[in-house]
Amino acid sequence: MKTRAAVAFEAKKPLEIVELDLEGPKSGEVLVEIMATGICHTDAYTLDGLDSEGLFPSVLGHEGAGIVREVGAGVTSVAVGDHVIPLYTPECRQCKSCLSGKTNLCTAIRATQGKGLMPDGTTRFSYKGQPIFHYMGCSTFSNFTVLPEIAVAKIRTDAPFDTSCYIGCGVTTGVGAVVHTAKVQPGDTVVVFGLGGIGLNVIQGAKLAGAGMIVGVDINPDREEWGRRFGMTHFANPKEVGDIVPHIVALTDGGADFTFDATGNTTVMRQALEACHRGWGTSIVIGVAEAGKEISTRPFQLVTGRNWRGTAFGGARGRTDTPKIVDWYMNGMIEIDPMITHRLTLDEINKGFDLMHAGESIRSVVIY
Amino acid sequence: MKTRAAVAFEAKKPLEIVELDLEGPKSGEVLVEIMATGICHTDAYTLDGLDSEGLFPSVLGHEGAGIVREVGAGVTSVAVGDHVIPLYTPECRQCKSCLSGKTNLCTAIRATQGKGLMPDGTTRFSYKGQPIFHYMGCSTFSNFTVLPEIAVAKIRTDAPFDTSCYIGCGVTTGVGAVVHTAKVQPGDTVVVFGLGGIGLNVIQGAKLAGAGMIVGVDINPDREEWGRRFGMTHFANPKEVGDIVPHIVALTDGGADFTFDATGNTTVMRQALEACHRGWGTSIVIGVAEAGKEISTRPFQLVTGRNWRGTAFGGARGRTDTPKIVDWYMNGMIEIDPMITHRLTLDEINKGFDLMHAGESIRSVVIY
Repeated sequence: MKTRAAVAFEAKKPLEIVELDLEGPKSGEVLVEIMATGICHTDAYTLDGLDSEGLFPSVLGHEGAGIVREVGAGVTSVAVGDHVIPLYTPECRQCKSCLSGKTNLCTAIRATQGKGLMPDGTTRFSYKGQPIFHYMGCSTFSNFTVLPEIAVAKIRTDAPFDTSCYIGCGVTTGVGAVVHTAKVQPGDTVVVFGLGGIGLNVIQGAKLAGAGMIVGVDINPDREEWGRRFGMTHFANPKEVGDIVPHIVALTDGGADFTFDATGNTTVMRQALEACHRGWGTSIVIGVAEAGKEISTRPFQLVTGRNWRGTAFGGARGRTDTPKIVDWYMNGMIEIDPMITHRLTLDEINKGFDLMHAGESIRSVVIY
Repeated sequence: MKTRAAVAFEAKKPLEIVELDLEGPKSGEVLVEIMATGICHTDAYTLDGLDSEGLFPSVLGHEGAGIVREVGAGVTSVAVGDHVIPLYTPECRQCKSCLSGKTNLCTAIRATQGKGLMPDGTTRFSYKGQPIFHYMGCSTFSNFTVLPEIAVAKIRTDAPFDTSCYIGCGVTTGVGAVVHTAKVQPGDTVVVFGLGGIGLNVIQGAKLAGAGMIVGVDINPDREEWGRRFGMTHFANPKEVGDIVPHIVALTDGGADFTFDATGNTTVMRQALEACHRGWGTSIVIGVAEAGKEISTRPFQLVTGRNWRGTAFGGARGRTDTPKIVDWYMNGMIEIDPMITHRLTLDEINKGFDLMHAGESIRSVVIY
């Protein structure tokens, strides 16, 4: 079949809107009509050539929502007509990782996914006979895409596509980091470094979990209003308060119970750790750092009881937890609508990247 | 009163055995006759001038066992004749840290302890009228010492002093890191870097907790026999196997559930983290690093599910958990006797430091 798609033919060039050939789903795969997709910093990171493992030409996009239009042989967990969110972190429920009960990082198809291929080692996309790589196992910048059955989460049919697509990455990453990874408890003190889309979702996750104090940190004063909109109780601008670590330690009476880095800046990651309370504070790295950058601290920080952890896809098990976050959204436990600042057509997708780079959007969504 | 003590008059000089003046216990304090004391690397670290906060002249020693000989006003939790272990990590049961239930790092007397003083801001030791500092709130290199009531753990009277003194630091640090901090579960895979006294106690803690695989790592091949003596199931010598991280990852089918650094070497700390299993592996820093040294890694290691933590005094609450470890020893759940490789008189104390520096002892104990 044919599908319209925004193709990244090479790094550091705008996406090109073309018609691709798409092979139908093979055994264990499903064809999904993508109805909406968010544009995430990770797409830009790859497009900008910063990801040393980025592959071109490829169909980027990993934050979508859509409808199953065809299923391959043996598919049992979803059916034609089901509404789904594609999962860059699949959930096979059979690998060592899934069965451990201790991580959401399913490894069933990791090797081929990292190579831009479907689990059988081939690609479903092609352009004028040339194979086009998949991206993060999703490729939601295509109106139709093929995914492994284990890489789609079936969601309720009354959830709007243009907002619930954001649950495919940003919402779950932020809210899940609080709920699944940190397991914040009522009354805990939470500090969030970086009030972009992820940081705002950390804030609303902290509010949902009953945090007693939710401190947002950003060098952009405009983000204070955004933070307060989602439950932030205190704001700190490092450009105004000076050294942020002692400022946070004083503000939180000794340090935070939990801090989250949503900046991807390794210097900030260190500050986030050191702003944790002695004895038990835990810092969670969410942001993806520039290639080659490392985090450091004095081991004394750990020996005196601080914990340094990370999270991917908010610790959410793709098929099990993602539908619950859709429920939380539909039940009003979390908000998404005000975060979708821009709605674009596929032809306008490069504008979405420009808005993000300029810091003018929280989330731009392409609607097919 | 008078007491014989080994005094560190200045850094990088041998201890001098002299008779000191010792003031009796003030309100909330107890006078303890030290019956035996271990010589720990931390004493050497201070004596060698490596601790920038080290104070001289002082009475070092923090790993003792003894008998309460006098109690100050208001002391209720111990009485004359009680057998006790001095605690460099006290347990007041009233400060924010104790009441959190999440850390053993009581802060009640931290400020004065760090200054070599009793909680009232003075010292009990003096030599020819010159004040002598306390050390880690213990000063067990003195036949008699004064401690705050909250800094002694009452233990059973049938525990021998010359072995149970080791519970005052090394045993609890190693066993506790496994049991209290890591909370190793039956079947877990454990890797221990550094098979000195702490490492051997991590091994026996792992055995006690039912670990399924206990890997010891040391560049000294003689330590293999020691490790196996306490429950180590596999040994790896980095000088023989080459790059230790991939070796451990292969040996443990993807990485360890828990790794422990008992070397104090920041390069090894990084290896210990990176030898953890993706998704859930936890690395625990026990060793005290050289001043100014930092740990580093790529944040990707954390984002993909590894946890970096630390432990002090094995996460054991001083007065609550230390007596239980004495019980474990007396019940045969853990061993100490074979680790006490040398017994010395106070006059021979400098020989104990020499043996440690030469790697010839597991633990030397001074018996008064």
